[in-house]
Amino acid sequence: MAMADRILLGPGPSNPYPEATSALAAPLLGHLDPEFLRILDQTCERLRQVWGTANRRTLPLSGTGSIGMEAAFANLVRPGQPVVVAVNGLFGERMCDVAARYGATVHRVDHEWGQPVDVDRVLAAHPAPALVGAVHAETSTGVRSDIAALGAALRARDEDTLLLADCVTSLGGIEVAVDDWGVDVAYSGTQKCLGVAPGLAPFTISERAWAHRVEHPPTWYLDLGMIGDYVSGTASGGRTYHHTAPVAMIASLHAALGRVLDEGLDAVVRRHHAAGQRLQDGLVDLGLELFAADGHRLPELTTVRVPDGVDSAQVRGRLLTEYGIEIGAGAGKYASTVWRIGLMGHNARLDRAELVLAALRQVLRR
Amino acid sequence: MAMADRILLGPGPSNPYPEATSALAAPLLGHLDPEFLRILDQTCERLRQVWGTANRRTLPLSGTGSIGMEAAFANLVRPGQPVVVAVNGLFGERMCDVAARYGATVHRVDHEWGQPVDVDRVLAAHPAPALVGAVHAETSTGVRSDIAALGAALRARDEDTLLLADCVTSLGGIEVAVDDWGVDVAYSGTQKCLGVAPGLAPFTISERAWAHRVEHPPTWYLDLGMIGDYVSGTASGGRTYHHTAPVAMIASLHAALGRVLDEGLDAVVRRHHAAGQRLQDGLVDLGLELFAADGHRLPELTTVRVPDGVDSAQVRGRLLTEYGIEIGAGAGKYASTVWRIGLMGHNARLDRAELVLAALRQVLRR
Repeated sequence: MAMADRILLGPGPSNPYPEATSALAAPLLGHLDPEFLRILDQTCERLRQVWGTANRRTLPLSGTGSIGMEAAFANLVRPGQPVVVAVNGLFGERMCDVAARYGATVHRVDHEWGQPVDVDRVLAAHPAPALVGAVHAETSTGVRSDIAALGAALRARDEDTLLLADCVTSLGGIEVAVDDWGVDVAYSGTQKCLGVAPGLAPFTISERAWAHRVEHPPTWYLDLGMIGDYVSGTASGGRTYHHTAPVAMIASLHAALGRVLDEGLDAVVRRHHAAGQRLQDGLVDLGLELFAADGHRLPELTTVRVPDGVDSAQVRGRLLTEYGIEIGAGAGKYASTVWRIGLMGHNARLDRAELVLAALRQVLRR
Repeated sequence: MAMADRILLGPGPSNPYPEATSALAAPLLGHLDPEFLRILDQTCERLRQVWGTANRRTLPLSGTGSIGMEAAFANLVRPGQPVVVAVNGLFGERMCDVAARYGATVHRVDHEWGQPVDVDRVLAAHPAPALVGAVHAETSTGVRSDIAALGAALRARDEDTLLLADCVTSLGGIEVAVDDWGVDVAYSGTQKCLGVAPGLAPFTISERAWAHRVEHPPTWYLDLGMIGDYVSGTASGGRTYHHTAPVAMIASLHAALGRVLDEGLDAVVRRHHAAGQRLQDGLVDLGLELFAADGHRLPELTTVRVPDGVDSAQVRGRLLTEYGIEIGAGAGKYASTVWRIGLMGHNARLDRAELVLAALRQVLRR
């Protein structure tokens, strides 16, 4: 059977950087091999640069992006604690679900999908929550929220509330500045702007949040204290085995981060911006209507309304079978009325933007 | 810097089958692409063959082997329920830790490390536990336990106790027969005898256990009901997105399983047996003493005592730097007095056995 070769322009995964693919297939190393530990340490250091943080506990967790969300709540929330979640899409919804499983008293602040998070409403939801969670780049709607403003407002009010940011679709694509923004804990996924296959969740946690963490969380696999003893080393300088690290995936992330930092973070952000702007302009030129609120659109993930009378699934199917291009359906109640088109990581390029515009023009006969 | 190329003869990871490596680097597919879903379905079907089960819920979980253990307890144990764990090594210890985190009242049955599980003692630990957990192939000691006998004894006593088997180091290397043995839930890792990089936990659960599961487990990422709606499909036949599947790793597992089934499960088991037997005979010929109890030794993972006066770490270091061969230290209190030598998956070969024997002979000057 012929091997399918797709151009992945949905909400993720995206096509990996070539360096990431090569590293996946490199000879495997043991998870305690000094060579691998060097790669692991460098990966954590590269992640610090991309996150914009000096956090000692900055590491790739061994699961896909959502495991980062779970690790955050499992290690930071105690039963009965108030947690405020800004919900402006599917991943804010998910935060409420996960927080509640770990016993939090969840105060959700609902927003219309397609709109960014309203900082004032989030602050008004509770006077002193243990944690506030918000999504930086909502994968379900293509909206960017102002985490810097949220962080500043929280810090101005009190010193105890922790700020959690979901950066699954932002890290490596648009600016993320964990330390400057006052973010205490953040997670991402490898399969979006970082340009690696899915399977790891880059994670970072501040010293402040670390000091507040649950000593013996209800999960073993995501016990950050135990994981930290392997990844960052123990107080005595050694490393304690926790679980077998996904060495091939980590080598792949290491290579992709090397590529991103060689290009330069600013240049990578500009590339995502240019590709997304061209796509959004081109979609409007085709007579289509963008979904996300103007001024808050992610360059790396564009949402566009399916024109009246057009069968969303049929168009996506034709793009896939005739052009080898994957774009995404909408999420939740917008499943059949919105498309999601990603230009992330290695795909954040003008040629990808032109290609998907040209293919859409053909399929929609515009 | 030169790329390290290791011969991985520790307790895992092992060197992947070439097919598994090629598949890792194949063009990436989206997690909802029909082509990928075909690969996922085939992977689950191939896993059923390797597990020896007709369980509908047989799938790769998105994490390394230990996530299988966590998923089992998270989805099957309710606070206060009695759970019996046979402890004859590190992974039995870990089961106690994980079970307790999910609220189980743990009745541990301790065995001397290096000895197999004593079925009668396990049965005597509690008259009617909700679940009994045991490790089929103890990675820490190189011991095989008789899960078939444990299953038969449990079934003869009552119909309600679930049987959990850790098959991380057995699946794809020695016989595993989930249905015949009366195992209700079992998990493995990809990086041992299955010959794939670490990152997935093959998992299977019987209808009986499924009916007993916790409807809304404390973990979101490992909520088997939600995962099943994506992997196995919903009752209405559709699939519901849960988390982004680690598509590259699943394609790699798919390829390795194809290789294993092409060779034939019986032949693969014979190959592991022959390689392990040669290694163990050769170690004895070198004057070394095997650690695991005679008659209960795993062919795929051999434990051997470090001779008196020999520095364990120095020998392992020389094997690594001079020969590119990784072998493992011991686990727990045997860290510096036992070596663990794996001949798993693609490494279950006579040439690997001869190579590590020859290198040990040189380094030990025997």
